[in-house]
Amino acid sequence: MKTLLKNATLLPEYGFESRPVSVLVEDRRIVSITETPLLETEGITETVDCKGNLLIPAFYNIHCHAAMTLFRGYGEDLPLQRWLEERIFPAEEKLTHRSVLVATRLAVAEMLRNGIASFSDMYMFEDAVAEAVLETGIKANLSRSFVSFDPTMDIQKDSRFAEFLSLANQYRNADDGRIAVDLSLHAEYTNVPRVCRDVAEYAKTNGYGIQLHLSETEKEHLECIGRHGKTPTEFFASHGVLDVPVTAAHCVWASEGDIALLAEKGVSVAHNPVSNLKLGSGVMPLRKMLDAGVNVGLGTDGVASNNRLDLLREMQTAAILHKGVSRDPAITVAADMLSLATRNGALAQGREDSGEVREGFRADLVLIDRSSLHNMPSYDDYAMLAYSADRSDVLFTMVDGRILYRNGAYTSIDEERLRFESREVFAHYFD
Amino acid sequence: MKTLLKNATLLPEYGFESRPVSVLVEDRRIVSITETPLLETEGITETVDCKGNLLIPAFYNIHCHAAMTLFRGYGEDLPLQRWLEERIFPAEEKLTHRSVLVATRLAVAEMLRNGIASFSDMYMFEDAVAEAVLETGIKANLSRSFVSFDPTMDIQKDSRFAEFLSLANQYRNADDGRIAVDLSLHAEYTNVPRVCRDVAEYAKTNGYGIQLHLSETEKEHLECIGRHGKTPTEFFASHGVLDVPVTAAHCVWASEGDIALLAEKGVSVAHNPVSNLKLGSGVMPLRKMLDAGVNVGLGTDGVASNNRLDLLREMQTAAILHKGVSRDPAITVAADMLSLATRNGALAQGREDSGEVREGFRADLVLIDRSSLHNMPSYDDYAMLAYSADRSDVLFTMVDGRILYRNGAYTSIDEERLRFESREVFAHYFD
Repeated sequence: MKTLLKNATLLPEYGFESRPVSVLVEDRRIVSITETPLLETEGITETVDCKGNLLIPAFYNIHCHAAMTLFRGYGEDLPLQRWLEERIFPAEEKLTHRSVLVATRLAVAEMLRNGIASFSDMYMFEDAVAEAVLETGIKANLSRSFVSFDPTMDIQKDSRFAEFLSLANQYRNADDGRIAVDLSLHAEYTNVPRVCRDVAEYAKTNGYGIQLHLSETEKEHLECIGRHGKTPTEFFASHGVLDVPVTAAHCVWASEGDIALLAEKGVSVAHNPVSNLKLGSGVMPLRKMLDAGVNVGLGTDGVASNNRLDLLREMQTAAILHKGVSRDPAITVAADMLSLATRNGALAQGREDSGEVREGFRADLVLIDRSSLHNMPSYDDYAMLAYSADRSDVLFTMVDGRILYRNGAYTSIDEERLRFESREVFAHYFD
Repeated sequence: MKTLLKNATLLPEYGFESRPVSVLVEDRRIVSITETPLLETEGITETVDCKGNLLIPAFYNIHCHAAMTLFRGYGEDLPLQRWLEERIFPAEEKLTHRSVLVATRLAVAEMLRNGIASFSDMYMFEDAVAEAVLETGIKANLSRSFVSFDPTMDIQKDSRFAEFLSLANQYRNADDGRIAVDLSLHAEYTNVPRVCRDVAEYAKTNGYGIQLHLSETEKEHLECIGRHGKTPTEFFASHGVLDVPVTAAHCVWASEGDIALLAEKGVSVAHNPVSNLKLGSGVMPLRKMLDAGVNVGLGTDGVASNNRLDLLREMQTAAILHKGVSRDPAITVAADMLSLATRNGALAQGREDSGEVREGFRADLVLIDRSSLHNMPSYDDYAMLAYSADRSDVLFTMVDGRILYRNGAYTSIDEERLRFESREVFAHYFD
């Protein structure tokens, strides 16, 4: 399959200034970028006229619990412990393969519509998540989290490990790497040291990455110090967990020492500004992380604490939040915010050949409408992305060379069926 | 003109639970709300099937500099003083009646598309703003700000007062109150006490409200204390400025004493969370203001510091921001956030018969798409508005009984002409 995207505008960093370019996509990759018109057009399956709109790398959502679409708007405005204990945990008890499958399909539809090409997931029934990912064409790094309270627990005998193995056997690197399978430790406060060591060891031996929650709340951070005499970052480092590729979600309470350690260990951090604000967790020290050289990407977390799966919104929230709380409007610049949402996220997922509009890279691309009235005038395309555009400006989302969403319609999702099945699942979920 | 909005869902506070209602609009007002079907349909000009979607009060943007659409994306990520002195002030020197007219039309188009029925404006060439408001059908409280540095200045001899008088003579209460004209003092640091007293006196005698900037930055707040031994709130109070209906924008640095004074004087506060974050001004003490009984509405400020005119976004930013910085997810609830954007804003503008879906009230209404995939499921309509919906969910915006925006199209704005004229103005503005 060969797709020609003609008359596209690229961001200034790609060196074409505002001259229109033709981007030729073959199978999963960008094979050439040249000034429009492209003369060689042999064998082209489809030509898409981008009409001068802005072609950017697609977004990578590196922290998500996709199936939590089930709980959108359920249990709002509660203190964190009551929210978890009275609402979310009991609701999660009722999850089934079927409800996770349908809820994940709904999440994927929302993400594709919002320009997201790939997400990292930590949840239950990850085999259902894998099914939804495989059938819809989106990418994902899937993980089934370990939770352990017995200090003698043998991971090899745990049902979660069996779930992980089954997931890995069936889906690891499925469809040319579109699905990656990671290991996961839910968090420090939900795991015993032995399990952390064993998971780290298994990951190192078998080449897996690890997803985890890290220092999301002050309580979690301080209790870990009380328990172990170490911060959560130090705790995981001491058990070898940070010696493999890790994506650590939140890190709101990471200390200066933690930040140095995260940088040294090459840990990627998933910054979830909307969820951290909505749950009252606080504001992650983004500037310090970037200055220390930490690879920071963006995540939505689950919709129960967001309530969207919208990386443009995360980017825009990050773009203004850190200026506001630091009281320094120059602390971040628009172009850096875009990197968080794109290239940094791809690197966090271990997708080195993704996250830029470059020859040889995976064709994960989004076309942004520059002609919307709310984007006029457009003196600065980076500012447009960081401050004025929104998901309604996403004209198409291409993943591994396939356009999966375009002008309000899906090519891999039957929207009527999705609506019908979603309504059916939601209507009976809390019966 | 009689318009029937049938099969609408109202918010729980209106008492119909989820039963569909018919809202009959005659001329500028809601004349009846009954359960669908409505039997009496004589003389109905148009029937709109709301298909079960959510009919809410339209939004009131109570702090704006509409014509700053001209400067969207111009001068990003700079420290405040450099931004003002190197970018905004020189750019504003070049404003003309024509550029303000076109830029305001563009602002109005964006606001209508985003569900905003009315805005409060402080800027130059307000006669051009009035023209744009009159022709497009939106509502506005218009003001030409005083700026004074000569302690002996006589306002009656000032060119700005002449502009105000001309604006008031031509447009005060125009089109059955659709346009209101206010007085304005730009801020404490840009005015001398005598002018503040004279403007207050004139406003009291002639029944005008006053718009002002108040304690936006810490610098402004502290320098005022240094200069006058009073906070900006105390300064204005001491000169009688707060004895008329006032809308005070920002109030980020208002002290507890200031908040008590604002409440006592019945001052309305325009909370501009996005602009305050983007410019690094800080976070307004919203919870304290609400607890003290201050009427708080929402504003966008100008797009140069936002970069949108999107009250849903302001509401959603406020809804998560205060939870995050206070670290208390229960500090605000979704329904309260909607009041800020609607009823409180209408009250701030002196529009007592607006901001609710009630018989006898002005028909300023917005229909929100409940069927978007990103709003599914919808356990809680308030949460949908505060956390998941966005401007793409605005199906129509009705102002004073006229639908001005609907399904992507304007009824009072020639979009092609607007695009053409905007491009023309923007292309030559910085020549």
